[in-house]
Amino acid sequence: MKIDRDAPIGVFDSGVGGLTVAREIMRNLPSEKIVYFGDTARVPYGSKSRETIIRYSRQIIRFLQEQQVKAIVIACNTASAFALDAVRDELEIPVLGVIEPGALVAARETRNKRVGVIGTIGTVGSGIHEDFLRKLDPEITVFGKACPLFVPLVEEGWLHDPITFEVARRYLRELQEREIDTLILGCTHYPLIRSTIREVMGEGVRLVNPAYESALELKRLLTEEDLLSTGKEQEEFPYRFYVSDLADKFKSFANSILPYDVEMTQKIDIENY
Amino acid sequence: MKIDRDAPIGVFDSGVGGLTVAREIMRNLPSEKIVYFGDTARVPYGSKSRETIIRYSRQIIRFLQEQQVKAIVIACNTASAFALDAVRDELEIPVLGVIEPGALVAARETRNKRVGVIGTIGTVGSGIHEDFLRKLDPEITVFGKACPLFVPLVEEGWLHDPITFEVARRYLRELQEREIDTLILGCTHYPLIRSTIREVMGEGVRLVNPAYESALELKRLLTEEDLLSTGKEQEEFPYRFYVSDLADKFKSFANSILPYDVEMTQKIDIENY
Repeated sequence: MKIDRDAPIGVFDSGVGGLTVAREIMRNLPSEKIVYFGDTARVPYGSKSRETIIRYSRQIIRFLQEQQVKAIVIACNTASAFALDAVRDELEIPVLGVIEPGALVAARETRNKRVGVIGTIGTVGSGIHEDFLRKLDPEITVFGKACPLFVPLVEEGWLHDPITFEVARRYLRELQEREIDTLILGCTHYPLIRSTIREVMGEGVRLVNPAYESALELKRLLTEEDLLSTGKEQEEFPYRFYVSDLADKFKSFANSILPYDVEMTQKIDIENY
Repeated sequence: MKIDRDAPIGVFDSGVGGLTVAREIMRNLPSEKIVYFGDTARVPYGSKSRETIIRYSRQIIRFLQEQQVKAIVIACNTASAFALDAVRDELEIPVLGVIEPGALVAARETRNKRVGVIGTIGTVGSGIHEDFLRKLDPEITVFGKACPLFVPLVEEGWLHDPITFEVARRYLRELQEREIDTLILGCTHYPLIRSTIREVMGEGVRLVNPAYESALELKRLLTEEDLLSTGKEQEEFPYRFYVSDLADKFKSFANSILPYDVEMTQKIDIENY
């Protein structure tokens, strides 16, 4: 199969969180077109089972393939944890998740071999970061902590807020006691409260942002496969956004975190894919 | 159609919250059998559109009818707001939601005709409580406030907690400034943080718990239709629980709020209904 290098990159998430990944791709690969799908009808994925997440991911990938994407980024930690291996073998185009790029950087950066991972109940419970990190370096000890209140706090817009600070202090206390020196922000919403997490953890702990690391990994992969956009097919608005429900709410969140206005958001009946 | 008075009552919710309604039915109608369905695969409903909620509700009702229920309680505010009218006409058995019973009591109890409603974004945004209350008494002014952090706080188990108190203070401040004298707990999770809400609002504000009021309304309705259980068909365990995903997590939450252990929770593929 010949892949069109000027085709868009498909990015999907359970909802709005993956926009932090799309944002990093826009920043680091400014010539690329993006088709974003947010599964807002079935959010959150964090509390759902592996088989459900795989089924959802397959439906979304069928939709993205219909959009002729040249690569797919699973911009959702839960879907990366549960579905990446299953769908990778089914696809002829490159597909990457957000777990591996973050884990690689954490393994490289840690000095004391004590790495923390924060995320949803599903991601942390899956132990997927631990699996990756231990494969990269068996001497690393991983400490996971689910932080289920962080997503609703971010979606409430309480990003720099005493309540968010108190919640973070409580969640992160046990990771501080474990004396980790590196912390993976294992949920796509978390980069938006990075400064609060930084304040709680202190300057001594390296924060790994998988959204940023995944954008760099995508760039490396597209370069290697000779799939970087030629930049010749310029479009006035190279980013398209699709959701499975409530497009208006998505738009207002997207506009609050992306550096420009999201004009067109289209609703898709994802159950039909 | 002849309805079997010893058949179970069907109760459904988007997840675990409706268990507070089931609990009130168990307390107030101890001879009744219950079939509970929690749509844990598609929770939360609060952020989804009307048409999606109606579709989900129809699927669940088909499942409950397969279980031969004699009446249905929509123990979810969002589904009551969006789907009750649509499904009521399609059914031959009694069906009730949790909005109307709470609104009736609020309209009766308020002295200064200023009533507050707290709930999810979907419920508060639907304006359904306001519609009911204004129909009951056009002089009533309704003040709605969405409190999206309350559900995750309850599910985190932080029921009597300084963080929950701070969040409640922030959410409820504007209702206090409006000088309401009656407050409807318009989300099934909220009775579990009733004492925190009471502490913030003070003794002068009457808190209306629709879970309790709905159980009383159900009792009235079953009495009127001559459908109260004869109590002759005693079963060792008269309550059955079904979910659409992750039965174990449901079980542990159920066990924390119900006065006995939920032994059997069965997972159903609700998309097939």
